[in-house]
Amino acid sequence: MSAKIRLYVEHPLGAGQTVPLDRDQAHYLFGVMRLAAGAAVALFNGKDGEWLAEVAEAGKRGGTLVCQEQTKPLQLPPDLWLMFAPIKKARTDFIVEKAAEMGAARILPVQTEFTNSERIRQDRLQAHAVEAAEQCGGTYVPEVADLQKLPRVLDQWPAGRQLMFCDEAEVGNALQLAAQTQKDAPWAILIGPEGGFSEAERKRLHALPQSHVVSLGPRILRADTAAVAAMTLWQQALGDW
Amino acid sequence: MSAKIRLYVEHPLGAGQTVPLDRDQAHYLFGVMRLAAGAAVALFNGKDGEWLAEVAEAGKRGGTLVCQEQTKPLQLPPDLWLMFAPIKKARTDFIVEKAAEMGAARILPVQTEFTNSERIRQDRLQAHAVEAAEQCGGTYVPEVADLQKLPRVLDQWPAGRQLMFCDEAEVGNALQLAAQTQKDAPWAILIGPEGGFSEAERKRLHALPQSHVVSLGPRILRADTAAVAAMTLWQQALGDW
Repeated sequence: MSAKIRLYVEHPLGAGQTVPLDRDQAHYLFGVMRLAAGAAVALFNGKDGEWLAEVAEAGKRGGTLVCQEQTKPLQLPPDLWLMFAPIKKARTDFIVEKAAEMGAARILPVQTEFTNSERIRQDRLQAHAVEAAEQCGGTYVPEVADLQKLPRVLDQWPAGRQLMFCDEAEVGNALQLAAQTQKDAPWAILIGPEGGFSEAERKRLHALPQSHVVSLGPRILRADTAAVAAMTLWQQALGDW
Repeated sequence: MSAKIRLYVEHPLGAGQTVPLDRDQAHYLFGVMRLAAGAAVALFNGKDGEWLAEVAEAGKRGGTLVCQEQTKPLQLPPDLWLMFAPIKKARTDFIVEKAAEMGAARILPVQTEFTNSERIRQDRLQAHAVEAAEQCGGTYVPEVADLQKLPRVLDQWPAGRQLMFCDEAEVGNALQLAAQTQKDAPWAILIGPEGGFSEAERKRLHALPQSHVVSLGPRILRADTAAVAAMTLWQQALGDW
C-alpha cells in the first residue's frame, strides 16, 4: 500500500491512532479525489513525522483514517525566519508557498515604509503554507505570523538571531564570512518591498549588530524571485542543502 | 528629465534617433499611462543599451519618440541557457519571467517523457520575457525557443556547453568543482518536470560528458522554485553575481 495523497491534519499521529476528518477534508478525499474505505493516505501534522493511514470510514460530512506505520520521521527545517513586505495577492501567495518549499521555519510579513498593503489574510496565507508542505513532501508547516510593522520587529529583535538583509543598493555577500562564525545560530532573511527600503530603514538595518548585507546580483529582482534566491544562498551556506 | 517607464522596442537606438511606435505601444504609453508630448521614456532593444527618449508625437494609433542620451550600456547576461519542461500555464509564465530576471541568455522549453504539455505559445512566452526585462531594468531580452524534444536537443548538444542537471534523486553539488575548470564556458541548466525524469533520460543525462549533477536540497521543489534556486547557485558560482 502506498499513498498518492498527502494530507496535513492537526490530530496526533501514531501506530493504530484514529484520525477524524472534518467536512472539508472529507469533501476533498472522498468527493474530489474519490477515495473509498481501504484507500491509503499519507498524513503529517508538523510534529509526528509522516504516517501511512488507511480510510476506515468515508462519509459526506466526515470520516476517519487509521494510522498504520510511520513513513518519514519529523524533519524540522533549520531555524530560519523569512521576513517580507507583502505585495500583490498572487505574489504574496507565491512567497509563502516558496518559503515552505525552501524550508523556512517561520514566515513573518512585515510592513515597511514603502509596503503597499496594510493588512494580510493570515488564515489564507497559512493555508497556502499547509498546501505547499503537502505538495513538497515536507513533514513540517511553517507558521505564518500576523503582519507587523518593521520598526516594532526590530525593537524586539532577539539578541542571538542573525539577519540576512538583502539590499539592492549593496554589492558583496557577507554570508560566506558569517557561515564560519554563525553556522549554528538562528537566522532570519529580510526581503524588501518592490520600492526598496527607505533611507531611514536602511540605516537602522545596517546599524543592527546581527545584520549581514547580501547582494542578489546586478538585476533588480521582484520580491518573490528575491525570496527564493536569498533562501537558496542561505540554505547553501548555512542550511540543510 | 528622468523616465519612470521602460519600453522594449525593436528599432535601432542612438543619439537623435527617431523611434516609431506601433498601435499597442501607443495605446500603452498614451492611453494607459497618459503620457503626452515631451514626456520621458526609457527605451532598450536588446542591442544598443538603454536610452532616454522624449515623446515627440502622441497619437491614438501611433507616435514617435526621439532618443536623447544613453543611460545604460548594453549588459549581456552570461551565456547561460535555461531548459525546462513546460508545466501549467501560470507556472510556465513564471519560469520565463524568472529566467529573464535572473539573467539567462536563452530559454529552451523541452519536452521530456513526463512533460504534460505538447505545445507552448512561444509568442506569449516571448512577450513575458520582454515584460520581465522591462521591469527588472535589464537591457537584454532572452530569446524563448520553440518547444523541442529533449533527446533531439541532446543529440545536437554543443561540444563546449556545460550542463547543470538538477536531479532530485541525487545529492551533492558538482558546481564548486566545475567553477574551477569551466568558469568561462557556455552553460545550460536543465530543470525536470514535476514528475521527474524517466530512468532512460537520467541515464542519458548522466552519460553526457558535459553534465554536472546538482542537488537542490532535501525537499521536493516545484519546477518554478527549482528554476530560481538553480539559477541562483549557478550565478553565484559561475555567473555575474
